[in-house]
Amino acid sequence: MFDFEPIGISAREASRGLASAGTEKKNEALRLIARELISRKRDILDQNRADVKAAEAKGVKSTLTDRLYLNEKRIEGIAEGVLKVADLGDPVGEVISGETRPNGLRIKKVRVPLGVVGIIYESRPNVTVDAAALCLKSGNAAILRGGSDAIGTNIVLAAIMRDCVKKAGLPENAIQLLADTSHESANALMHAHGLVDVLIPRGGAGLIRSCVENSTVPVIETGVGNCHIYVDSAANINMAVDIIDNAKTQRPGVCNACETVLVHRDIAEELLPKLKKRLDAHRVEIRGCKITKMILGSSVTDATEEDWATEYLDYILAVKVVDNIFDAVEHIRKYSTGHSECIVTDSLPAAEEFTSAIDAAAVYVNASTRFTDGFEFGLGAEIGISTAKLHARGPMGLRELTTVKYIINGSGQIRQ
Amino acid sequence: MFDFEPIGISAREASRGLASAGTEKKNEALRLIARELISRKRDILDQNRADVKAAEAKGVKSTLTDRLYLNEKRIEGIAEGVLKVADLGDPVGEVISGETRPNGLRIKKVRVPLGVVGIIYESRPNVTVDAAALCLKSGNAAILRGGSDAIGTNIVLAAIMRDCVKKAGLPENAIQLLADTSHESANALMHAHGLVDVLIPRGGAGLIRSCVENSTVPVIETGVGNCHIYVDSAANINMAVDIIDNAKTQRPGVCNACETVLVHRDIAEELLPKLKKRLDAHRVEIRGCKITKMILGSSVTDATEEDWATEYLDYILAVKVVDNIFDAVEHIRKYSTGHSECIVTDSLPAAEEFTSAIDAAAVYVNASTRFTDGFEFGLGAEIGISTAKLHARGPMGLRELTTVKYIINGSGQIRQ
Repeated sequence: MFDFEPIGISAREASRGLASAGTEKKNEALRLIARELISRKRDILDQNRADVKAAEAKGVKSTLTDRLYLNEKRIEGIAEGVLKVADLGDPVGEVISGETRPNGLRIKKVRVPLGVVGIIYESRPNVTVDAAALCLKSGNAAILRGGSDAIGTNIVLAAIMRDCVKKAGLPENAIQLLADTSHESANALMHAHGLVDVLIPRGGAGLIRSCVENSTVPVIETGVGNCHIYVDSAANINMAVDIIDNAKTQRPGVCNACETVLVHRDIAEELLPKLKKRLDAHRVEIRGCKITKMILGSSVTDATEEDWATEYLDYILAVKVVDNIFDAVEHIRKYSTGHSECIVTDSLPAAEEFTSAIDAAAVYVNASTRFTDGFEFGLGAEIGISTAKLHARGPMGLRELTTVKYIINGSGQIRQ
Repeated sequence: MFDFEPIGISAREASRGLASAGTEKKNEALRLIARELISRKRDILDQNRADVKAAEAKGVKSTLTDRLYLNEKRIEGIAEGVLKVADLGDPVGEVISGETRPNGLRIKKVRVPLGVVGIIYESRPNVTVDAAALCLKSGNAAILRGGSDAIGTNIVLAAIMRDCVKKAGLPENAIQLLADTSHESANALMHAHGLVDVLIPRGGAGLIRSCVENSTVPVIETGVGNCHIYVDSAANINMAVDIIDNAKTQRPGVCNACETVLVHRDIAEELLPKLKKRLDAHRVEIRGCKITKMILGSSVTDATEEDWATEYLDYILAVKVVDNIFDAVEHIRKYSTGHSECIVTDSLPAAEEFTSAIDAAAVYVNASTRFTDGFEFGLGAEIGISTAKLHARGPMGLRELTTVKYIINGSGQIRQ
């Protein structure tokens, strides 16, 4: 049987050492990691070849083996990412607020690490390093549970990172990888309430649902984005075409890509042919409602109920003509995953109605949904885009990997 | 079978109306509630008499029937609490941060209500009104699931509040009470992921554990406080006695009362007799370690492992003599519920070690743990003291009942 407890306890122990480690030591560890990833890239690539080969032999889909695959350039990219984390400000120790109460108590609210962060993710070795680096910088011990297909690569990456953490004088158990990639190990991590402070699943909707339904550890849901763009009757048509094209085709496999376009009926006949022409250049398949089909003809397939609810992550777009902004809002409320939603309009009342009525992490007026990202928002590297409402919403950077504590200094005050 | 879905859906619907309701309307509803609670106190007291009588007939403990019991003065106190909530600032709409990005995108992070808040609590009618008032002010729909013994009183209170909300022009389903107080209704609330945004259990350790273990809705743990006071060798002895006396006896039944005192061995012989003399005045039972017993004699009973872990909420204090501050920290780490912890010392290094090493919502130097409270911290009324690390830690006021959304205004920006 998989025994999580010793791992959890050593992570808690390590988190205490990390919490009081200074920024310089943490940055030293990160810079060492970046250097060692490069200098030991042969070891990494050898293991990665073996992982990819085994995955291919098992018949894993090519889109998935592509996520698993590393080459020199990708390793360099990962190392650069670690250096970027080193360059970010340290959130730990920030005094968020403070005051002296009438009775003389001096109260301050100080930012501290969460403690132990669990990350469950798929077979993407880059996540192993990204997540560990962000946890380290924010003073948290990381317990990584990656997908089984990447386990050989992940073991090498974790060993390199642990060496570097130790060399920098920090507890190596600040980074732990679960070598057991069975369902049982994921389950143990989900039930480690008291040993793990937060669980961040990174992956598809199924993984996230499983964590929400099974975990006793608090979960922050990330990264499922069924994002909509509503083109209002008062929209600039060319701007709408540019934004939809960008949001659909610039990188269709990511969570902030657009999946459904809603079009006000008054401009549907003008917009839709222009949009189709633009999307045809990327061979985007359009699945439309009846009116969309009437306007665009037989190349459009029928959108089903399932289409409205699907995050395609592909060159497919669902299109629906709506009677007015209220119908658009209703549709989004029904199908949105609370990630990124957009209105294209020149009407101020329409923009205000939309931004007020839509409940999502990011609500856009006249810009591509693709901007929902830590760097684009000026927050730096992120561990994911939270679609949860508690604790963190939107890009989860270093600050979102912390909590607070109140420190109260007195001189013998007692309560009356 | 208990069908939660229509309740959840109508709460979601109401939350949308509330989210865009202005502060004035919400305050009008709160002031109406305060007035109606007073003018309809006869109805409330009649129902409450019946509830108390039924509880007594069932053999419910007197400490519990006391929590259930209302009289005119208590109703006036509840109404005053509602007025205080009306007087607090409205957190909704606050722009927390914002900037214009190099590409011209104007990004702002705005405070918005969570949506639908579920509260599971025991047979305390005051919680029905307190929780509903705080949710209303913060723009959230409340679903209240109180204990079965108070159901008659709660039904009247909820009906009064719903009337007032409606009179103020707000959706009455902003406040809903589950009339079904079976285990099934609590369970349905815990599994309403997607319909309920957060679940706040208010009550004993068992209730909170049950929510954490069973809920798929995010839970914020509140109110379990196994609070310690460590008296360092460099402590002012009289100050230590005053603080311990206050933290133990000023109101022993609350979560920020002190349950265990840890005493540095170098001052144990001086402190303990003085402390015992002071606590004897309140007939506090001391359960001590071996050394404590040697110093204080046979009136002290043996503390067991269970004592260190128990939140007495009573006139009982566990006392342990420790070798040094590190042993004190170790003990607290093992048994703390992360609520409020205190050191009494005149040593700056000791104070710094303690406040850095202890991971709790509130860490005190030379003051009573009894101050952990929304009003004492200057935050106003609170829905509970969070001992969780995510989203809210310490007193949970109106701001902690909100989340954020990013609103991004552009002029056609697309991502390169």
